[in-house]
Amino acid sequence: MLDRIDHVGIACRDLAGAVAFYESTFGLVVVDREMNELQGVTEVMMRDAYAAAGTSYIQLLEPLRPDTPVGRFLERRGEGIHHIAYGVPDIRAALAAISATGVRPVNPEPQRGSMGSSIAFLHPRDVGGVLTELVQARQPA
Amino acid sequence: MLDRIDHVGIACRDLAGAVAFYESTFGLVVVDREMNELQGVTEVMMRDAYAAAGTSYIQLLEPLRPDTPVGRFLERRGEGIHHIAYGVPDIRAALAAISATGVRPVNPEPQRGSMGSSIAFLHPRDVGGVLTELVQARQPA
Repeated sequence: MLDRIDHVGIACRDLAGAVAFYESTFGLVVVDREMNELQGVTEVMMRDAYAAAGTSYIQLLEPLRPDTPVGRFLERRGEGIHHIAYGVPDIRAALAAISATGVRPVNPEPQRGSMGSSIAFLHPRDVGGVLTELVQARQPA
Repeated sequence: MLDRIDHVGIACRDLAGAVAFYESTFGLVVVDREMNELQGVTEVMMRDAYAAAGTSYIQLLEPLRPDTPVGRFLERRGEGIHHIAYGVPDIRAALAAISATGVRPVNPEPQRGSMGSSIAFLHPRDVGGVLTELVQARQPA
């Protein structure tokens, strides 16, 4: 059901500084940068400069405002790992199968994620305290 | 420098329950289970039943005692994501390169990790609040 760890989301207060840190310390490169008004974040996807396509990303998240999920996370817990996202081949099928086990999706329908993906979050209370995201990557044209 | 996300470590209070949850909800299977006295945990490595070798794991961690790093994490933050681990081809070379940027390793020397790996943690204060681990997998014999 789960193809891969698509990305790990990391909440930060200074996105430019965090990007520079991951570049200089770990040699990651920026693959994508976008603002997602619905999620209330600016997000940067990074990965190893030599990684093949399809591997996992690090997603750096800076909230657009304090009254957003990531803004509240920073206020409550400080900077750090925010969520884990698994790649799935078919997000509606995965959501249906997972919901049938009693785990609640945060929203009933998939939403737009980074790079044209479809995403859905699962309630951390139903996943042992882990904010869990499903990601269906955009299909190649 | 970083080959992959080797695993994401998740702290839990009931390891057997967490394993059963990841099996039934997400279809993961147990690849390895061991006690690591030095790290103060029992740990279970899981991944998708159909994932090719070399992909990322979910590592479920239950502390052996309250006075361990994972025991203190549970006391302070509750169940949830504990750390992220990156695979590296040569842990001593990676530690030297990363230390040269000013990020402090928790221990000066690599330690034993799951499945015969060599591991080293980096201070979360130096990595934007993220407890970060480097993993060099055991070389095939």
